[in-house]
Amino acid sequence: MAATPHALLFDVFGTVVDWRGGIARDAAPFLARHGIAMDPHAFAESWRDRYQPAMQAVRSGARPFTRLDVLHRENLEQVLRTAGADPARIPEAELAEFNRAWHRLDPWPDAVAGLHRLKARFVIAPLSNGNIALLLNMAKRAGLPWDAILGAEVAQAYKPQPEAYLRTAEILGVPPGACMLVAAHNSDLAAARACGLQTAFVGRREHGPAQTTDLGPEQDWEVVAESFTDLADRLGCAP
Amino acid sequence: MAATPHALLFDVFGTVVDWRGGIARDAAPFLARHGIAMDPHAFAESWRDRYQPAMQAVRSGARPFTRLDVLHRENLEQVLRTAGADPARIPEAELAEFNRAWHRLDPWPDAVAGLHRLKARFVIAPLSNGNIALLLNMAKRAGLPWDAILGAEVAQAYKPQPEAYLRTAEILGVPPGACMLVAAHNSDLAAARACGLQTAFVGRREHGPAQTTDLGPEQDWEVVAESFTDLADRLGCAP
Repeated sequence: MAATPHALLFDVFGTVVDWRGGIARDAAPFLARHGIAMDPHAFAESWRDRYQPAMQAVRSGARPFTRLDVLHRENLEQVLRTAGADPARIPEAELAEFNRAWHRLDPWPDAVAGLHRLKARFVIAPLSNGNIALLLNMAKRAGLPWDAILGAEVAQAYKPQPEAYLRTAEILGVPPGACMLVAAHNSDLAAARACGLQTAFVGRREHGPAQTTDLGPEQDWEVVAESFTDLADRLGCAP
Repeated sequence: MAATPHALLFDVFGTVVDWRGGIARDAAPFLARHGIAMDPHAFAESWRDRYQPAMQAVRSGARPFTRLDVLHRENLEQVLRTAGADPARIPEAELAEFNRAWHRLDPWPDAVAGLHRLKARFVIAPLSNGNIALLLNMAKRAGLPWDAILGAEVAQAYKPQPEAYLRTAEILGVPPGACMLVAAHNSDLAAARACGLQTAFVGRREHGPAQTTDLGPEQDWEVVAESFTDLADRLGCAP
């Protein structure tokens, strides 16, 4: 293995928190209240499906950097329309509150305990496409003990653009190889490795029992772990 | 008093940490090793004196945003020259290490305990002109339990420019009035108040016993406190 990293940088949606379960939990009463006949988990998947295309407009330069809260809100209105609901007929405060469901996602059961152990030895920070307020409110609610909130908004670039990884290392004042990306997504790790970062794969089932992608590591990542506590074990952190 | 704030934002140099004592501590062996006959506390004051003029070049637009680690390094070389030393004759690694003395400043004795109490009730983050790596390394060493690292580098503007305060509130997703700046400097608080932030003055003696400025509050700040633990008391935080 390469030199011990200075910082562990974490993908968040799917790797640290269960977005599908959290969005479905908040969608259920919202959908019922507005008479929208859609399964809450299907609603969550549909909202999430619009995530990559929305960021692509920023990545391509067609649109200036726009934080994820704004993209989530635009995507919410689109999903509501495809479900036959008119977002203009739903009170603004209710839409804004539902959009903040992304700030209220629960961590996977091992995440908080693992992060505390990792924090004793490494700088730990999100390197997520989520914006700062989203990640901060999520951390405060869930008890995620980040040392700093980094990611797309600080780097002003969305993963997997190289700038998202390279600027984060530069902001930390270390070479890319002194950073390790922790993610449940092989594509994110591949982009980080191409920039010189170390990589750790943690398997998750973010899409539920029917998941077909990212079921295991697809490259020889520096570390492959079952959970954040297993990651802490493998990186030599005290129990 | 106005509504309870969502976030407490902290000036750092002088308010949270003792820059004069910390720089003097690291300067003493450096100066001795290189035969520079200058009092370490005078060296610290001289290095710090160049802080505002260096940022002014960025504020005026004469220079693009440049992080404080870079400005500190340029200022260090200037101070060495005025002390009769040639920085080019000092090994690069030694200059870089000494420049990171700003990452190793100690908090005032009440700071860590006060921040822990404040964190239980509020979002707490630095709103400092220090760059992210500086503030992060400082926090990690000193145990400052920030929820996020905000400030000039994230806002891409140096205090007291309005953008430093306003962009920080906007990044947090709240109006300026939901933020309270905590500082030992009346001028910083005045600039924050002009942007609509709430304000808290905490008296410090950052310049040592001969300090002549900021000996007390110069406006009717929302809160005036003796220490961070006193601030926690005044803001109704649990012991």
